[in-house]
Amino acid sequence: MIEKNPAYRRIATEEAFFTADISAGYRRLLDEGKYQDPGFRSLWGFYSSSMSARARFIFEGLHDLGDKRIAHMDAAGIDRQIIALTAPGVQVFDPATASSLAIDANDQLAEACRRYPDRFTGMAAVAPHDPANAVKEMERAVKKLGFRAVIVNSHIQGHYLDEPQFLPVLEAAEALDVPIYLHPNTPPPSMIQPFLEAGLDGAIYGFGVETGLHMLRIIVAGVFDHFPKLQFIIGHTGEALPFWLYRLDYMHAATVRSERYPNVKALKHPVSHYLKNNVYVTNSGVAWQPSIEFCQKVLGVERVMYAMDYPYQYVPEEVAICDAMTIPAADKQAFFEGNARRVFKLS
Amino acid sequence: MIEKNPAYRRIATEEAFFTADISAGYRRLLDEGKYQDPGFRSLWGFYSSSMSARARFIFEGLHDLGDKRIAHMDAAGIDRQIIALTAPGVQVFDPATASSLAIDANDQLAEACRRYPDRFTGMAAVAPHDPANAVKEMERAVKKLGFRAVIVNSHIQGHYLDEPQFLPVLEAAEALDVPIYLHPNTPPPSMIQPFLEAGLDGAIYGFGVETGLHMLRIIVAGVFDHFPKLQFIIGHTGEALPFWLYRLDYMHAATVRSERYPNVKALKHPVSHYLKNNVYVTNSGVAWQPSIEFCQKVLGVERVMYAMDYPYQYVPEEVAICDAMTIPAADKQAFFEGNARRVFKLS
Repeated sequence: MIEKNPAYRRIATEEAFFTADISAGYRRLLDEGKYQDPGFRSLWGFYSSSMSARARFIFEGLHDLGDKRIAHMDAAGIDRQIIALTAPGVQVFDPATASSLAIDANDQLAEACRRYPDRFTGMAAVAPHDPANAVKEMERAVKKLGFRAVIVNSHIQGHYLDEPQFLPVLEAAEALDVPIYLHPNTPPPSMIQPFLEAGLDGAIYGFGVETGLHMLRIIVAGVFDHFPKLQFIIGHTGEALPFWLYRLDYMHAATVRSERYPNVKALKHPVSHYLKNNVYVTNSGVAWQPSIEFCQKVLGVERVMYAMDYPYQYVPEEVAICDAMTIPAADKQAFFEGNARRVFKLS
Repeated sequence: MIEKNPAYRRIATEEAFFTADISAGYRRLLDEGKYQDPGFRSLWGFYSSSMSARARFIFEGLHDLGDKRIAHMDAAGIDRQIIALTAPGVQVFDPATASSLAIDANDQLAEACRRYPDRFTGMAAVAPHDPANAVKEMERAVKKLGFRAVIVNSHIQGHYLDEPQFLPVLEAAEALDVPIYLHPNTPPPSMIQPFLEAGLDGAIYGFGVETGLHMLRIIVAGVFDHFPKLQFIIGHTGEALPFWLYRLDYMHAATVRSERYPNVKALKHPVSHYLKNNVYVTNSGVAWQPSIEFCQKVLGVERVMYAMDYPYQYVPEEVAICDAMTIPAADKQAFFEGNARRVFKLS
């Protein structure tokens, strides 16, 4: 049973939606067969056509920004969702189409946020591969629509945010003072094969290691030395990067010393510094005290936020599991509410 | 300072060596350019030619099974090394060459174990891609040479142990009652690109996720339902799989229910069951109480063993760090000594 009046509001920070146009666009990409990405086909070929109960629930839940979503939030005791366009967002379309679909998705999400101002907060969809328009849309979404973060669904047609063409997007996020939620995507074609052939390309494992790789690439490229105030958010208890903290520091220092790669240079700080100062983590998909508490311990209590991952993981019992964690009350308040209020500037 | 007479013997369980013939064979593969594996080139192109202090120390340390190794063990307070042929072992050679080099490597290691019976224990090198000869060599190594485990350096030219051609190797390991140490390798060509271009293909990250993928493939393929007594060992605090435990169970069950992949079938137990009953983990490269203690907590104290990763990570101070862990004395004894005695059948 879920406690109706806990000592905190529950703010879920990695919740997903979808527009009919983007859904139709995915279908078109899959049918035409021109966009060659086995991960996209594995993920959306499945969700857009499977008749399994899980796929139907998710597909329908993604399309709803209305009463059904609110009813699910009420049943699970969720006060507010921080909502973003689901993966892979507009990142699979050509730049012009992607930017146009992002604007439309943001408008639809903004309209829902106006309808339910106490329940929904928006993250801005953008087309990072159309950088000038992405920056414009970030400015509009933050200043005009009141959005409080930007969503990037990991690799952008096999490219990563540490590459120079994306610099304007990172610069704009820092300037606008909004975090970038680096959400998983299936591994790109250059990485997916050994995952895909074993059915491990999705949320069970491929998502996590590809997003972990992306976050690490951003760190070791020196992005945060360049943009020290820039903040990222990663889900799934930090895609296991907190668990790797010691080895990341040790091996990065050893790699720099050995001069093994011309592009792996000394950073101003150890890798762990950036994870503790430029990265927030959420527990999306991981209703498990050991991993949550581990993140709080090694990154700091102020760096760990609650997320449900609706509608992908709508399991109300998991809310009760998180409520029941044996951690200090103040840490639980920070986890469910306090950190999210600060990070997303909620009143 | 390292405590000279702690309440336990320190047994290091993931220690590496190399033969001159295999070293020359790697050089030949690199020079000829016929073996196309960017990870192998990244790793051994570097270690076999770099003049950096780190690369020289490692390259020389790998070649030594004599007094210098013993002196390093003495200086760091290591009583015994469980030694294996370093990655990628013989797995990069054609099957016949690989089997012949494995026999020679095992003979050299057995000779060193005879010279230092109180200090060295061997793991058997094999060529999994030459399965019939691999089984023969496993039998010889265990029954004649007294080896207590088998080493497999993750992917075998892009193939994984869950594939049917390797069944005899798994069957033999169970029948001989020896664990398989699944050691990292660089990601295969079908996976490495986004790691390699950022210098993240090696021990800093690529090793861990590729080996984690391999272990997961073995689990979800149902290998342990087929061979319930078979035991694996993975290093680096379990390549982060213990941290993923909750999500692995949740998403495997969800994937089976949704019938997304024809080859992802229900197992007899949740994924976590196999990690707790068929997998040992070592802390090679991770002298860090948070991750070690996490593994003890979620897998069981009897599943976690000490390793140094000599000569790759010869850092005597790390021994003192592990000595100083604030865990119960019995758990520390199990970690440094007791579990290794049981797993490797040491008197």
